[in-house]
Amino acid sequence: MNNNTKSLKNYTIGIDVGGTKMTGVLFDGNKVLADLTLATPKDDLSHFLIMVKALIEPLEERAKKDKVKISGIGIGVPGILDLAGTKILRCANLSLLDGIKLGDELKNRFNYDVIVDNDANCFTLAEALLGAGKNFKNIYGLTLGTGIGGGWWINEKIYEGSHGSANEPGHMIVNLDQKMDIEDSYHKLTQNNPAQLAEEAYRGDILAEKAFEEVGNNIGAVIVNLIKLIDPEIIIIGGSVVESGDLFLNAVKKTIKEYIPRPEARQTKIVKSKLGSFSGAIGAALLITHNS
Amino acid sequence: MNNNTKSLKNYTIGIDVGGTKMTGVLFDGNKVLADLTLATPKDDLSHFLIMVKALIEPLEERAKKDKVKISGIGIGVPGILDLAGTKILRCANLSLLDGIKLGDELKNRFNYDVIVDNDANCFTLAEALLGAGKNFKNIYGLTLGTGIGGGWWINEKIYEGSHGSANEPGHMIVNLDQKMDIEDSYHKLTQNNPAQLAEEAYRGDILAEKAFEEVGNNIGAVIVNLIKLIDPEIIIIGGSVVESGDLFLNAVKKTIKEYIPRPEARQTKIVKSKLGSFSGAIGAALLITHNS
Repeated sequence: MNNNTKSLKNYTIGIDVGGTKMTGVLFDGNKVLADLTLATPKDDLSHFLIMVKALIEPLEERAKKDKVKISGIGIGVPGILDLAGTKILRCANLSLLDGIKLGDELKNRFNYDVIVDNDANCFTLAEALLGAGKNFKNIYGLTLGTGIGGGWWINEKIYEGSHGSANEPGHMIVNLDQKMDIEDSYHKLTQNNPAQLAEEAYRGDILAEKAFEEVGNNIGAVIVNLIKLIDPEIIIIGGSVVESGDLFLNAVKKTIKEYIPRPEARQTKIVKSKLGSFSGAIGAALLITHNS
Repeated sequence: MNNNTKSLKNYTIGIDVGGTKMTGVLFDGNKVLADLTLATPKDDLSHFLIMVKALIEPLEERAKKDKVKISGIGIGVPGILDLAGTKILRCANLSLLDGIKLGDELKNRFNYDVIVDNDANCFTLAEALLGAGKNFKNIYGLTLGTGIGGGWWINEKIYEGSHGSANEPGHMIVNLDQKMDIEDSYHKLTQNNPAQLAEEAYRGDILAEKAFEEVGNNIGAVIVNLIKLIDPEIIIIGGSVVESGDLFLNAVKKTIKEYIPRPEARQTKIVKSKLGSFSGAIGAALLITHNS
């Protein structure tokens, strides 16, 4: 017996499908052994499936080299699934997956168990079991990627809601007067090359600064509403946009202070993801071991 | 053995403390045996405690007449309690209770077990166990009284949150541009004699109609956000303002349809309270039996 006992059993593959790129990892239950990132095809499903295969094959090679079996593939997608987890009902930022039974499609192509879940649920699962949420029991994961996603870890599992449509913080109403979805306002930022926009904001461009401020106000309102409704112990924020966090976190904090004036009501911790850019893929890999 | 077995054991007293009136009921576990409603004193705590006594005594008399013991008093208050349920942290619509350990105050005056909880939690408990939520497991109770309250029944109990400040739907952000709390906008209606305002709206007064429409839009947004975050099976709406429901329910429905366009995402049932004006007091009475 040694510390690696858990690592030696089986590997799993986790794939985090984002609106712009997808990342695959080979995971031993504790750490990432190999990883690969490719652009997400946006044209059609068959192209998408070919690229998933291209993502999986090098990871399979590595497992073969280690002489360790792969026990399954977990996949996180930026969409809403039915309660059974078989069909993707809607995938706003990757519409080729709308209505697709992705698990079945992949089972037909590969000889593995496949489990599909929402990408923000995967993120939250990874952070809850291995990341910033390790010592907490009531954890909300908020992802700021191509879209805004949410996942809630409570009672040792991801909360699903009664009809599978919970955890959509990006579609909450926070500004009735503007008649604009939070995600629409957010897309103004993410669809216009956020890295470039961030550069412009850093140089003092007022329009670019405003774009980040608006997003900050909205994310702040999302967090206020999370606290007012479910009051989690900790909110963990992840996703690529957090990298430009300094540009909008002030607006986030200002909104929270303004709407939750009493410090004793602001006990929910708000932290950044600990597992970084692999958290979604690690969470996808954990779908296999956590479900069995 | 007969159907009344449960009824014959002990009585409990339930008190629903509202911002304007308070109702006490004598409860046998199934039905209300006696009830009394008095105006809520707003001046100071000692006057408040005297009126609570005045509310309890006739109910005690009735129990004495029936020769049945009273096993405890449950009290619902329109405020936020600490996690232990002993201290009222804040009671916006009845500030004389701010910081008060109401349970201890009453235990010193009466010889009963006393349990205090938030009034919307009591409402939800009653509707979940005996009312409109009887056949459901994931139930959100929304109360429209002097203020807006919320309670969530999940996993066979009322959800409390990690720091005791969950279930405050009336303090969610739904309109950042207006920088106004939902409850503030709601108070414009409830503090100006809602019955008279309703009459004016029925007669076609445009300002009165607007006041109800604004409240309807806000309540609609609250419901949208409840569905987007926790997706309950059923939302049960209660409280005195529901009586003028026809004046704002159209705005509620319009907002929900606008922000949740896909019918399959609108599966959460939205219904009116079944236990009516006694639901809060019945829920308070149930605190005693449901906790033991």
